[in-house]
Amino acid sequence: MAEKDDNVVFIGKKGIMSYVLAVVTQFNNGESSVVIKARGRAISRAVDVAEIVRQRFVQGVTPENIKIDTEEIEGDEGPVKVSAIEITLSKK
Amino acid sequence: MAEKDDNVVFIGKKGIMSYVLAVVTQFNNGESSVVIKARGRAISRAVDVAEIVRQRFVQGVTPENIKIDTEEIEGDEGPVKVSAIEITLSKK
Repeated sequence: MAEKDDNVVFIGKKGIMSYVLAVVTQFNNGESSVVIKARGRAISRAVDVAEIVRQRFVQGVTPENIKIDTEEIEGDEGPVKVSAIEITLSKK
Repeated sequence: MAEKDDNVVFIGKKGIMSYVLAVVTQFNNGESSVVIKARGRAISRAVDVAEIVRQRFVQGVTPENIKIDTEEIEGDEGPVKVSAIEITLSKK
């Protein structure tokens, strides 16, 4: 599911290109920066999305800020900790 | 395989704690910063390693710099592109 909160794209279990398209669309709609967020195993895919957007689709985009953190989410057996990433892509 | 090049720890297919231990050891040996590198699916694990070291093992460590990039590696059918991450953990 690609949640969209203004200029945020949250990476889930869809195909990579769905998220690439979501990010590209935001830049095409005039956003100067887009934040790509992911947790757990989806973190690798978040980096793939950022790299594909940057190298193939939008000129002059750079990963301006990358943050990592640990978030607590509700698991089947109570709260569990997962790693998270936030990649801010900015257009010059 | 945990390749070690000075203060670099490369994330492979071993258990997470092997890499956590490798990073913690470097800090204990007096390094003021350790670089965690990973490619492809291992990127999520690199973030896990950084977060576990920071939150459970070494006081005052912060992810000072995080870079993402695309690298070309040799696949079975010629060169393939993979995403890569480089997390520099620094101790104050």
